[in-house]
Amino acid sequence: MSKSGKKKVVIIGAGFGGLQAVKKLSQNSDLDITVIDKKNHHLFQPLLYQVATAVLSPADIAIPTRSLVGESKNVTVVLGEATKIDISNKTVYYQNTSTNYDYLILSAGARSSYFGNDQWAQHTIGLKNLKDALKIRHKLLISFEKAELSGDPEVAKSLLNYVIIGGGPTGVELAGSIAELSHQIIRDEFHTIDPALSKITLIEASPRLLMAFSPSLGEFAKRRLEKRGVEVLTGTRVLNIDEKGVHLEGKTIHSDTVIWAAGVQANAIAATLGAPLDRSGRVMVDEFCNIEGHPEVFVIGDIANYTKGLERPLPGVSPVAMQQGRYVAALIKNDLKNKKRKPFHYIDKGSMATIGRTDAVAEVGFLKMKGFFGWLAWLFVHLFYQVGFKNKITILITWVWSYIAFSAEARVIQDEVSAEKE
Amino acid sequence: MSKSGKKKVVIIGAGFGGLQAVKKLSQNSDLDITVIDKKNHHLFQPLLYQVATAVLSPADIAIPTRSLVGESKNVTVVLGEATKIDISNKTVYYQNTSTNYDYLILSAGARSSYFGNDQWAQHTIGLKNLKDALKIRHKLLISFEKAELSGDPEVAKSLLNYVIIGGGPTGVELAGSIAELSHQIIRDEFHTIDPALSKITLIEASPRLLMAFSPSLGEFAKRRLEKRGVEVLTGTRVLNIDEKGVHLEGKTIHSDTVIWAAGVQANAIAATLGAPLDRSGRVMVDEFCNIEGHPEVFVIGDIANYTKGLERPLPGVSPVAMQQGRYVAALIKNDLKNKKRKPFHYIDKGSMATIGRTDAVAEVGFLKMKGFFGWLAWLFVHLFYQVGFKNKITILITWVWSYIAFSAEARVIQDEVSAEKE
Repeated sequence: MSKSGKKKVVIIGAGFGGLQAVKKLSQNSDLDITVIDKKNHHLFQPLLYQVATAVLSPADIAIPTRSLVGESKNVTVVLGEATKIDISNKTVYYQNTSTNYDYLILSAGARSSYFGNDQWAQHTIGLKNLKDALKIRHKLLISFEKAELSGDPEVAKSLLNYVIIGGGPTGVELAGSIAELSHQIIRDEFHTIDPALSKITLIEASPRLLMAFSPSLGEFAKRRLEKRGVEVLTGTRVLNIDEKGVHLEGKTIHSDTVIWAAGVQANAIAATLGAPLDRSGRVMVDEFCNIEGHPEVFVIGDIANYTKGLERPLPGVSPVAMQQGRYVAALIKNDLKNKKRKPFHYIDKGSMATIGRTDAVAEVGFLKMKGFFGWLAWLFVHLFYQVGFKNKITILITWVWSYIAFSAEARVIQDEVSAEKE
Repeated sequence: MSKSGKKKVVIIGAGFGGLQAVKKLSQNSDLDITVIDKKNHHLFQPLLYQVATAVLSPADIAIPTRSLVGESKNVTVVLGEATKIDISNKTVYYQNTSTNYDYLILSAGARSSYFGNDQWAQHTIGLKNLKDALKIRHKLLISFEKAELSGDPEVAKSLLNYVIIGGGPTGVELAGSIAELSHQIIRDEFHTIDPALSKITLIEASPRLLMAFSPSLGEFAKRRLEKRGVEVLTGTRVLNIDEKGVHLEGKTIHSDTVIWAAGVQANAIAATLGAPLDRSGRVMVDEFCNIEGHPEVFVIGDIANYTKGLERPLPGVSPVAMQQGRYVAALIKNDLKNKKRKPFHYIDKGSMATIGRTDAVAEVGFLKMKGFFGWLAWLFVHLFYQVGFKNKITILITWVWSYIAFSAEARVIQDEVSAEKE
C-alpha cells in the first residue's frame, strides 16, 4: 500500500498492453499507479516500418506517455529502466531506486532474438524502436547518396543491396516499402546511378510468407512483392551472418544493410520473476494472466506466454496485449469490490499486413481481403487505432500527399557529412 | 566547361541563397549545374527553434534538396563537404574528389562563433542545424524527467535552469518557447515537481533586445518575455562559460543547459578563396557579389559581407540570401547573352520575431506590428515562405492543434534510457 493508504499498482512498460491498463485503472481514484518505461513515449509499433522508409516522422507514431496519462492525479510516469522484480517482497527495482506494489502488471514487451546467434546482432539492424527505425532510414538514404557519388554501376550495385530476414508482417511491409522507395520514389532524382539497380531480398525459413495468415494470402503477398522487384526466398535457412553478408545454403548475399525481422524474445526482466519461462523467455501465465501462486502479479502482451486452453500461445500482436491490458485492469477493479475473477478470453479480430501503396492482405475469421480492399481495411484500422487525434490527421495528410506526389517526405539525414569522416 | 560543352556552374550550399540560384539556373538547359551540400536537405532555419522546443519534427522544416531540384536533368546534387576552393584553377575539392567550374556560387552559410572563446563551445549548444535542435530538445525533455525522478525541489531547481545567450530573434524566440514548454504546456503532467520551478535567463550584451528592430519593439519583447517568466539581462557581458555555468560580472548562473545564439562566423571554406575577409570570416564582395578580379566567383548570403554603398553590411537573414541567389543566377544567364552586368540592389522587406503563441513583433519600413497582429504577420510570412506544399499544411495543422490543445506533440526522446548508463 502507498503512503496514502491507497492500493499501489506498478506497471512496467507503456506499450499497447500497459497503456490500456493504466488508462482504465486511472479512472479509479482509490488506486495509486506508477508507470515505468525506458522510453518517454508510447510507440505505435505497427507503423515503425514507415519511419524506417522515410514516409513518417518519429513524432507521427510516438506520443509522450505523460501527455496520454500524466494528467490523472493518481498516475506517476517514470522514465527509467526496470531491471529486477522481487516478488517475495513485492518490489520493483529501477534507476538506482525501487518501489513497492500491491499489484504488478508486467508489460515490458519483447526485443529481437537471434536464436542463439547473438553475434549476428552486430551485422544486422532490428526494428523494435525509433532508434532502430532511424538507423535503417539513415542506412538506406546514405546508400543512395554514396552510390550516386561513386558514379560506378558496380559499386552502386553492391551498395544498393538490401536483405530482410523474416517473412512475417514486419518483413513483408519493410520489403514492399523499401522497394517503393528505391525503385520508384527517388528514381528521377539520381542521375549518375539508376536506383532500379537496387536489389531487395526477403528471406523466410518457413515454406511461405505470412505464416499466421491463410496460405492463399501468403502466396498473394509473395507474387505482389516479386512484381515490385523483391526477390522472395521462402524455405530458406540463414546459416550465418557476418561482415561479408548473409550466408545461405550454397550462396552468400553480400550486403551492408541486413535487417532482422525474424524473431523476438521477451524483455530480460522476465527472468527476474523466478517463474517458468518458455523458449523465447516469455513468462508462462495462467487463465488470469497471473504467475503461479501470485494473484497480484500479472504478465501481459509480448512478454507473456498465454496458452491456457489453446493449441498454441496467443500471438505477439497488439490486439492480444490491448485486450489483456483492459482485462487485468478490470480484474484489479473487481478485486477491490471482492468480485470473483473470470478467466481471460481473447477475441481474434484478424490480421493484416500491407505490401505497398494501395496493396495489402487482411483476414478476419473467414473473410479474406487482398489488394486495394485489403489496403483500405488496413488504412481504416490503423488510423482508428492510432492514439492521438492530431497524429491521425497529420498521418492521413502525409499518406494522401505522398500517394499523390509519390514521394517520401521524411527523407532527412539528420547528421551532416564531413569530409574527414567519409 | 563540362564534357558536354555546356558551361559548368558549381554551387556550394543549398540554403536560402543556393537554392534560389539553382532553381533559377536549372531552367537554362545550356548550363550544367552541380550543388554540393553536407546536408541532404534544405533547412527552413527560421523555424529551427520550434524543433528545439518539440513543437515541430525535423521533417516538417527540412526538405531533401534532391526532391526540390534533383529532377532537373542538368542539376547534379552531391551530398558532401566542400573543403577547398582553388580559384586560379577554378576547382572545388570535396569528399576525396574535385570538380571544375566556369562559375562558382559560394553560399555555404555560417556557424556559431564564440568571439575567440572556442572552449565555450563544449559547454553550450548552438542552434544552426537539425542536430543542434534535437540536442536541445533532448536536453530539455530529459531535464524535466530527471527532475521528476529526483522528487527533490532543490535538485529540480538546479536541473530546470536554462540560459540563452544572445538577444537577437533566435534568442528571443527560444526563450519564449522554452518558457511556454516548461511553465505551461507540461505543467499538469508532472506530479512530484512543479515545472514552474524552471528558470529561463536570456542574456544580451547590447543595451536592448532585438537590436535590428526599432527600440520600442525591443522593449516590447523584453516586457512580454518577462511576463512569461523569462529573466532578461540586457547590457550584460558573459565573462566565461565552463562546467559550472555562465559567469557574469559579480554573478554565476549555474546551468547544465546553456544555449548559444549570440554570434556567427562564416563557414571555414571562405578562407580558402584567398580573398579579403571581415572579422567574422565573411568574404568581402563587390557590387556584383564577386570577389576582386574574379567575375566568375560569386559569394552570397551569410558567408558574404556586402557593404558596397551601404553604411553597414547587409544582415545575415534569409531575404538577403534569397535575393542575392536570384540576382547572381540572373547575372549568369545575362552573361551567356553578353548583356552588361547591373549591380545588386537589396530590397528590405522588414524583420520579424515571435515571442510566443499569438505574440510577435514585426517591422516593415515605417510600419511596426506587435502582439497578436505581429504574430499573424509572422505566421503568414513563414507559411508563405515554407518550401513544400505538404509541409505548409502539416505545419499549419500542428500549430493549430498545439494552440488548441496547448501541447507540444514532438516531445519524443528518441533514445531509450538504460539503468546502467543513468
